Amino acid sequence: MVGKSQIKFIKSLQQKKYRYEHQLFVVEGKKTVQELMASDFETYKIYSTDLNFVESETYNVELIKADDLKKMSNLSTPNGYLGVFKIPKPKKIPLQDWIVALDTISDPGNLGTIIRLCDWFGIKNIVTTTNNVDCFNPKVLQATMGSIARVQVTCVDLADFLKTANLPVYGAFMSGTAVHQANFTNPGILVMGNESNGISEEISKLVTKRITINHFGASTTESLNVATATAIILHEIRR
Amino acid sequence: MVGKSQIKFIKSLQQKKYRYEHQLFVVEGKKTVQELMASDFETYKIYSTDLNFVESETYNVELIKADDLKKMSNLSTPNGYLGVFKIPKPKKIPLQDWIVALDTISDPGNLGTIIRLCDWFGIKNIVTTTNNVDCFNPKVLQATMGSIARVQVTCVDLADFLKTANLPVYGAFMSGTAVHQANFTNPGILVMGNESNGISEEISKLVTKRITINHFGASTTESLNVATATAIILHEIRR
Repeated sequence: MVGKSQIKFIKSLQQKKYRYEHQLFVVEGKKTVQELMASDFETYKIYSTDLNFVESETYNVELIKADDLKKMSNLSTPNGYLGVFKIPKPKKIPLQDWIVALDTISDPGNLGTIIRLCDWFGIKNIVTTTNNVDCFNPKVLQATMGSIARVQVTCVDLADFLKTANLPVYGAFMSGTAVHQANFTNPGILVMGNESNGISEEISKLVTKRITINHFGASTTESLNVATATAIILHEIRR
Repeated sequence: MVGKSQIKFIKSLQQKKYRYEHQLFVVEGKKTVQELMASDFETYKIYSTDLNFVESETYNVELIKADDLKKMSNLSTPNGYLGVFKIPKPKKIPLQDWIVALDTISDPGNLGTIIRLCDWFGIKNIVTTTNNVDCFNPKVLQATMGSIARVQVTCVDLADFLKTANLPVYGAFMSGTAVHQANFTNPGILVMGNESNGISEEISKLVTKRITINHFGASTTESLNVATATAIILHEIRR
């Protein structure tokens, strides 16, 4: 039996303020919950409406009524599995492989998709500005499809990080070297900018190579979505 | 002054049933509304809270109170511009350039992003199954960022279309030729499958070349998001 105060507590973790106050975040969905349980993340508590699951995973797993789960869930149709995990302490960022740097992504779906892409392309570290959408936001986690278990997202002073990393810094702009002619070094840092404003002036100055994705023919579209642009550039980096 | 029945009518167009009954659809946002007004789409009615806009665009544009706009808008924060346009009659699909075929995309954001990508890569025609999410769904249109003005989306009997088009049919699968080694012919058809189930068995049989996007290193992610996968493949087709 899950009490009202516990439901209220879990629900409060949908807000960034409470996530960081308690150093806890929530994911939903069987696959994602299981991936996080099997990862280095520390489990705080798991709730499920699935008795088989509760009995097979004894540690910290509690059976919950569908009505109670609905009250703590962020989903309009909860899927029966909700996990609460501890926010990990940031680890040192290794500079031996590619790093993706996000200059203030605002949309949770875009950040989630970029985390999933980094996982696909074997990039283990993302650094972001402190104004970036929080990577433990429920909508971000939903879009990562469990990839948050394998990609570390660290808030940094981005200008400072780029200055001290001593790696080539590639940035995506509306003009620059075509991405398929960029001759990427290994490792490097790829900077992707905000959905509306692109890469800020301060960060632009620290980019050592400007790259672009050419559009085809007479298209008058102004830009690609940042997640699809990241997909194309990471594909070229790993090609 | 916009009457209650008119507000109710516009609001009803958020539902597919009423869109097709009246052959009308709604877009919001200054840029998208303007792009559609300047395109081949036929304008039914434009509403705006912006007096300058209303006075500069005389034809079929009506000043509306913010309160009334909020009642007919699909957005939680309406942005001041709402356009109602006629659903165009489907035109013949030319077979001289690449076509993207969607085997039942469910997520409006994914379809909108794919339409925007096709625009970027100069692909003017998308064909879909009849069960695909409707391209005039408000969330799809929001994600296209105006690209719907330049890309035609046509519902077809997909199996029939592929059989009679007499073009090479490329399909994205979990295994196949790596996308950067696919030697794409020009023109061709690219089939992308459903978010959960991929390309259906019936359509799979009509694919003449299976392609895949390799993941990098030890990643255990199961798949890429369909819109990001489409981005990478279209980039390779036009590379």
